[in-house]
Amino acid sequence: MKTIKAGIIGTGFIGPAHVEAARRLGFVEMLALCEANPELARSKADKLKEFLADKEIEVVHNCTPNHLHFDISKQIMAAGKHVISEKPLAMTTTESQELVDLAAKAGVINAIDFNYRYYPLVQEAKAMVLSGKLGDIFHANGSYTQDWLYLATDWNWRLVPQFSGKSRAVADVGSHWCDCIQFISGRKIVKVFADLRTIHKTRMKPKKEVETYSGKMLQPSDYEPVKIGTEDYANVLFEFDNGASGSFTVSQCFAGRKNRLYYELAGSKCSVVWDQERPNEMWIGYREKPNELLMKDPSLLSERARAYAHYPGGHPEAYPDGLKNFLLRVYSYIAGTSKEIDFSTFQDGHNELAICDAVLASAEAQKWQTVAY
Amino acid sequence: MKTIKAGIIGTGFIGPAHVEAARRLGFVEMLALCEANPELARSKADKLKEFLADKEIEVVHNCTPNHLHFDISKQIMAAGKHVISEKPLAMTTTESQELVDLAAKAGVINAIDFNYRYYPLVQEAKAMVLSGKLGDIFHANGSYTQDWLYLATDWNWRLVPQFSGKSRAVADVGSHWCDCIQFISGRKIVKVFADLRTIHKTRMKPKKEVETYSGKMLQPSDYEPVKIGTEDYANVLFEFDNGASGSFTVSQCFAGRKNRLYYELAGSKCSVVWDQERPNEMWIGYREKPNELLMKDPSLLSERARAYAHYPGGHPEAYPDGLKNFLLRVYSYIAGTSKEIDFSTFQDGHNELAICDAVLASAEAQKWQTVAY
Amino acid sequence: MKTIKAGIIGTGFIGPAHVEAARRLGFVEMLALCEANPELARSKADKLKEFLADKEIEVVHNCTPNHLHFDISKQIMAAGKHVISEKPLAMTTTESQELVDLAAKAGVINAIDFNYRYYPLVQEAKAMVLSGKLGDIFHANGSYTQDWLYLATDWNWRLVPQFSGKSRAVADVGSHWCDCIQFISGRKIVKVFADLRTIHKTRMKPKKEVETYSGKMLQPSDYEPVKIGTEDYANVLFEFDNGASGSFTVSQCFAGRKNRLYYELAGSKCSVVWDQERPNEMWIGYREKPNELLMKDPSLLSERARAYAHYPGGHPEAYPDGLKNFLLRVYSYIAGTSKEIDFSTFQDGHNELAICDAVLASAEAQKWQTVAY
Amino acid sequence: MKTIKAGIIGTGFIGPAHVEAARRLGFVEMLALCEANPELARSKADKLKEFLADKEIEVVHNCTPNHLHFDISKQIMAAGKHVISEKPLAMTTTESQELVDLAAKAGVINAIDFNYRYYPLVQEAKAMVLSGKLGDIFHANGSYTQDWLYLATDWNWRLVPQFSGKSRAVADVGSHWCDCIQFISGRKIVKVFADLRTIHKTRMKPKKEVETYSGKMLQPSDYEPVKIGTEDYANVLFEFDNGASGSFTVSQCFAGRKNRLYYELAGSKCSVVWDQERPNEMWIGYREKPNELLMKDPSLLSERARAYAHYPGGHPEAYPDGLKNFLLRVYSYIAGTSKEIDFSTFQDGHNELAICDAVLASAEAQKWQTVAY
Repeated sequence: MKTIKAGIIGTGFIGPAHVEAARRLGFVEMLALCEANPELARSKADKLKEFLADKEIEVVHNCTPNHLHFDISKQIMAAGKHVISEKPLAMTTTESQELVDLAAKAGVINAIDFNYRYYPLVQEAKAMVLSGKLGDIFHANGSYTQDWLYLATDWNWRLVPQFSGKSRAVADVGSHWCDCIQFISGRKIVKVFADLRTIHKTRMKPKKEVETYSGKMLQPSDYEPVKIGTEDYANVLFEFDNGASGSFTVSQCFAGRKNRLYYELAGSKCSVVWDQERPNEMWIGYREKPNELLMKDPSLLSERARAYAHYPGGHPEAYPDGLKNFLLRVYSYIAGTSKEIDFSTFQDGHNELAICDAVLASAEAQKWQTVAY
Repeated sequence: MKTIKAGIIGTGFIGPAHVEAARRLGFVEMLALCEANPELARSKADKLKEFLADKEIEVVHNCTPNHLHFDISKQIMAAGKHVISEKPLAMTTTESQELVDLAAKAGVINAIDFNYRYYPLVQEAKAMVLSGKLGDIFHANGSYTQDWLYLATDWNWRLVPQFSGKSRAVADVGSHWCDCIQFISGRKIVKVFADLRTIHKTRMKPKKEVETYSGKMLQPSDYEPVKIGTEDYANVLFEFDNGASGSFTVSQCFAGRKNRLYYELAGSKCSVVWDQERPNEMWIGYREKPNELLMKDPSLLSERARAYAHYPGGHPEAYPDGLKNFLLRVYSYIAGTSKEIDFSTFQDGHNELAICDAVLASAEAQKWQTVAY
Repeated sequence: MKTIKAGIIGTGFIGPAHVEAARRLGFVEMLALCEANPELARSKADKLKEFLADKEIEVVHNCTPNHLHFDISKQIMAAGKHVISEKPLAMTTTESQELVDLAAKAGVINAIDFNYRYYPLVQEAKAMVLSGKLGDIFHANGSYTQDWLYLATDWNWRLVPQFSGKSRAVADVGSHWCDCIQFISGRKIVKVFADLRTIHKTRMKPKKEVETYSGKMLQPSDYEPVKIGTEDYANVLFEFDNGASGSFTVSQCFAGRKNRLYYELAGSKCSVVWDQERPNEMWIGYREKPNELLMKDPSLLSERARAYAHYPGGHPEAYPDGLKNFLLRVYSYIAGTSKEIDFSTFQDGHNELAICDAVLASAEAQKWQTVAY
Repeated sequence: MKTIKAGIIGTGFIGPAHVEAARRLGFVEMLALCEANPELARSKADKLKEFLADKEIEVVHNCTPNHLHFDISKQIMAAGKHVISEKPLAMTTTESQELVDLAAKAGVINAIDFNYRYYPLVQEAKAMVLSGKLGDIFHANGSYTQDWLYLATDWNWRLVPQFSGKSRAVADVGSHWCDCIQFISGRKIVKVFADLRTIHKTRMKPKKEVETYSGKMLQPSDYEPVKIGTEDYANVLFEFDNGASGSFTVSQCFAGRKNRLYYELAGSKCSVVWDQERPNEMWIGYREKPNELLMKDPSLLSERARAYAHYPGGHPEAYPDGLKNFLLRVYSYIAGTSKEIDFSTFQDGHNELAICDAVLASAEAQKWQTVAY
């Protein structure tokens, strides 16, 4: 297979994860890494221009901080390159819609990293919906809970609206939950009612910045108080386009949960429950027979999900493998060895921003709000 | 210790459970059982009168169907006897307030069976709140999920508003969840926003009635369609009197969950998670050290919770023991060996009805609703 | 139903548990408790004689320390009463065989408290063997682990061979494991190879005695060193009468396990795994389909096991309910309402002592040893 | 960092896993794959010679079937290349000792893939032993259970002694268990007593060969009966060089377990329990305080284990990451960026074969057997 050459802009927690996942594919070569920081100083901007002018690079991963996503994805597409963006796609739905339109016009392949879709057992849940094994969807519930912003002394650029957006917990991790549940159910969230809460209304900002997820190990010696306006905690009720309903909770202040995306999907034939912190097992609930605990075992999975399980049963796969699965699909499509867009695209990124907008509007108005996709 | 003589009115699933739990105490003698059915025919009413006239009986357990609770509790108190009521206390808050007032006037001891409070690890969670181990309460979430009304062919008197009330899932099991979380946190729910859904808008009613929880084993040969107005499924957001917030989900149509009262309570020092289907363990989450899995082991529990654990660590106790613990507290108070009202009373029963009223009003108006206690 | 009158000799941890369990049946009246202590002083002996002379008492529970079991059971039977003995049945197989013979001669009903058999899900495992659902038995493994003798400062009469016997961990809890696995599989252990270890070769004995399981809470101020000869820890290999084999581990020095009887039984059609510390769920393993997690739910159990589950699915039952189930069977047989000896008898007690003998002999000789039943 | 060039001989399940893991490192280039099959026909042998003559290749991964390991590792070392062997190191201890000696003489870097050591939480257990957190080792127990050879119709070259060796279950997976427990405890197994059983004494061999772990999905149409002499199931008792003891069970016929390496290590300060099928959590048991459930979270791990955790807490890592960690250590040493041999070497491979020899001898003689390292 022809080697595809790629580059990456932005280096935080997720940039190196992309690099490693791409290497595993065996037919992608990471040519260059280009740092991008919030200031994007002139010298950096020049370096970016050079990078995008590199003819060898066919694909660019946009792993910059949130507020740069829009501008940099535009530049990538303007350079005629395929683009794999981190989420959120942009800061507003106006921007994200523009990116969707630009991608269509440019004819470039566009993808967004909703990586939790790519776990074998998330795919199995979708396969169960598609095959009718789950039956009609009765309701969907769940949560996404973390503790990396648990303390008032935890600080990160995601706490600052100009870098991260007006919504924090919902936009950052709630969007993953929504993407997962919509992907599995095949249904769109059309209405929301949201209650957003800021648990630490003032946080102590350390003088030097702290990386996402790694902050816990630092002992900052010096802080300044900063008022916080974005939510630490949210409860969101929603309705799907078929009238089924559900809810989810998001918290970044739940001690002991590190990155727990959890869902409970109730159907008319069975239920499925999955916890990202134990990703190799799915609970399947029945009324008339014993519940099941399905392991990630290729020999037990549907054909669809088996394609996401690269190791035998009892050889657990996890977070890095989800990202590999995502890139495998995107790059196989780029390489032409896959003819199907079986990955999350800019449209999905736009959809999540539209839900976030509705969440913010609902919380403000304290009313149900229709999602304007 | 002097033997206390008691009687019980009503025999469904819960009546015999009361009898068995009371027997375990060793100082309570169950003198008589009096059946009560929805029709309460004249002959039955006469029998009830005789029963209540029995001078030997000091305490009466009201285990009748919901719509009879109010009237029968009134009669019990009018006969000067102590009363232990099943929940709900009554059908409306007007009735429940009247019962609270009558109990105060009659000077009788009054209790209501919110049995989930009486698990050792629920008491331990409360002890952690009281001692400051949990810290400030950040938020509370959870669910109460079941599958005994999963199928459109499942039928029970609880589906009929005149017997069970205007709310079903929230009133029947959501009330347990609210009682637990209020008991543990020591906070009152003051505002709610609710979304109620009827999954089976038409159900098939069998010609003969089916007992709660046992219906699954029957094969009714003959059904008639009945329109259902009460909720199978609900999502409720709430605010505590200290401004902390939370949410819970109730479903009676979740395949594979039998009676899963589940809560996640996030505090500023740690979190606690408990699942009634695995009642001998409590998960305690921390940010800076490993999470804990506390077993029901008297030697590891606080003094408060230890009083609820009658068997050593590794000797699990469960549902029947919760009910025993409840009755032990009520009867010890009646016997005078305990001087503390450390059990749920009519006031708690009234409070849950007030929350239900607010839930129904909120769902109707699609607005946040203040609870009128 | 006629009330059966019973008495109990011996009050430690288990005596009151018998009393409570018997009360739950509703047709058993506990007339008297007779204390028995290791010294069995003259005055005590006289009191015992009076007790056994009481004509009203039909059944006696022998809940004395191990070394008194033999003599007191003999006296009970000599008094013409039915006997329910705690385990071990006696101190030696000579004694236990004598008791089996005496019981037959006396024509009294005899039972021994192997209480773990009486959990609904243990019965379900047996039902699966009987119905062929498990298939041929491939092998059986497991453990019984505790921590109540974890520290060198933990002391109890069970550490003293004259009161407890030559084997400790195997005799005390290993015997439960063997009884369970033989009961479920329907197979007899015919050969063993054992390795016994004393982890604390010297223990510190407090001046006053400490109750089983409750020792952890005491702070003994004064100890004396005592040499310990019985095993804290054992590994036993065994062979069943059909040639299948297995092994189990027993430890009383495993921090964090309180009373974990655990087995893994592999059959040719599926496997079953059960943990007494989570008694309401049984894992069932399959090769060609998802594993199952069967809950104790009467509507999902076999007819056999359903008779042991008195509360609906999701209403967990636990240790005290196992003991209740045991006594229910014994007393129903005594009352004549059951015609089947579906409970553990003196013969089972003798069998466990025979296995213990073989274990001790094997450990001594470091060879496989045939069990002489 | 300078790129290291490597090649791989042998392509079964594990060859591609090595390739993928090596790619993740970013400084290893896989130049060539050389197939090796049991026949090793002349043309293959020539191709192998060419491969080994390639000057660019510095390192060779020996991923051939067991019976070729010895000869091919010798050739690799004779060609002056570093060698990373799959386990077992050879077919006999004579061979494995020769390889250890040859490696020393040749001065090449030698490694063997005991991949389970390289999970972060296995490293954490070792760190706990080293730091004294676990205290003295009381005992070690566990099992390694699988179901890929569950049915009499399951076939694989590992069933044939000439390709796989005289021991099967113990050599194939029991060796992993022993390596893990010796690595963690820092103790050597010096004596064993073993009981080996062949559950399917005759198996049905399909006409075409089936890959390890993937056999379940095939539907072989044609079989021939073959007598099986190697063990499906084993129970092994052992003693460490410090006198502590333990046991483990191995089964390849346990329905529902796919690849469950499980250990319970009891120390004088706490216990640790780990299950490879849920690799991101370790249970830590205590007597005097609640048990812990430690997640793979770099911020909660010791410095040692943190180096094995590349993703933040709540981002689970699993089987492929263990293999990556192994190769990262080997290649860092080869590259000179690490100065420590912190990986399993040929000596470890020899040690496991010595244990296997003792296991076979013990089972034969039905006696305790000293391991001759």
